[in-house]
Amino acid sequence: MRQVTHILNTETNGPGLYEITTPVVNWCQKQHMEEGLLTLFIRHTSASLTIQENADPDVCHDLQDFFARIAPRNGPYRHSAEGPDDMPAHIRSALTQTQLTIPLTNGQLALGTWQGIYVFEHRDHRQRRQLAMHLLGE
Amino acid sequence: MRQVTHILNTETNGPGLYEITTPVVNWCQKQHMEEGLLTLFIRHTSASLTIQENADPDVCHDLQDFFARIAPRNGPYRHSAEGPDDMPAHIRSALTQTQLTIPLTNGQLALGTWQGIYVFEHRDHRQRRQLAMHLLGE
Amino acid sequence: MRQVTHILNTETNGPGLYEITTPVVNWCQKQHMEEGLLTLFIRHTSASLTIQENADPDVCHDLQDFFARIAPRNGPYRHSAEGPDDMPAHIRSALTQTQLTIPLTNGQLALGTWQGIYVFEHRDHRQRRQLAMHLLGE
Repeated sequence: MRQVTHILNTETNGPGLYEITTPVVNWCQKQHMEEGLLTLFIRHTSASLTIQENADPDVCHDLQDFFARIAPRNGPYRHSAEGPDDMPAHIRSALTQTQLTIPLTNGQLALGTWQGIYVFEHRDHRQRRQLAMHLLGE
Repeated sequence: MRQVTHILNTETNGPGLYEITTPVVNWCQKQHMEEGLLTLFIRHTSASLTIQENADPDVCHDLQDFFARIAPRNGPYRHSAEGPDDMPAHIRSALTQTQLTIPLTNGQLALGTWQGIYVFEHRDHRQRRQLAMHLLGE
Repeated sequence: MRQVTHILNTETNGPGLYEITTPVVNWCQKQHMEEGLLTLFIRHTSASLTIQENADPDVCHDLQDFFARIAPRNGPYRHSAEGPDDMPAHIRSALTQTQLTIPLTNGQLALGTWQGIYVFEHRDHRQRRQLAMHLLGE
């Protein structure tokens, strides 16, 4: 058994879900493993990860709206030094994922038919986000 | 070190938490490993995974009610083509887990005394849900 | 490739976020691995795990307040036998993480600059919390 690591860089430009399924799948395929375990870890606390439906783009917009309602910009927050979008970004990150682990079987990630992997950006301005990827298997 | 994969199929019949601790534990024990790492991955975006108390069934009902309040059926959603239960199902999935990873030590999953593993079904009608299981260890 | 497991015990004293980055990092370094995968699993359903900003302590207080608002003590819960803090504790656990997995590269956990690992205690009274740790790599 062997392991491979990689840093995937993604640019985001404002709040929303950014699909990264294709670069993740492509990188995995280049490692030529048949069975294994992929871990994605986002190295930030104001952006997060989620697996969601990638068929109807309205799902992503509704998710974005939901998190904006539940953790609004104008909440009763102490932490405001980094702007009005920062504390809700931390809350929305806590409610979703910093890390995802996906089995690999028969050379394919075990994603269901409609599952896409997304970076969920919670901040207003353009950001460069880093994901640590780790694949273990053979 | 070696790895084993498996698909666990579960039937659900309406919203709620369905405990899968027994089939998961049984499958692990059949692999005869002493130390390792188990990953469960649900291949859907309208059902999810959670680890919760399995002593008092009221906990599961209260959880179900909480998620029905926080992401209600009649929310202001764009995505409605798949029925009024679909968009809240995606939100409730985003708020819980698509994947769980549990260490195995001394031949046992590291679950605490009151921890049970659940499929959290968010849709109204009968569904067949697939979980990809991956166990690594020796 | 090899694996090591460990139980990390933490004491908490009331609701809030308790940083455990230092003991986790120290334990990993003692295993002398260059590349690998660390899994933390909390063996409870009324305390959870989260990765959050560890620069401004206000972030942790705001997070604590948010979860107290969204899953309040005086909610319409059936489950009350274990006290008014127990059912909200289960909900707050379901909304955050029971498990975190972090890649290790070049002998370091892949945590970003501002990321800290926290036990999120949801119960009122002093508790002893157990985390199962599993490190795999070489």
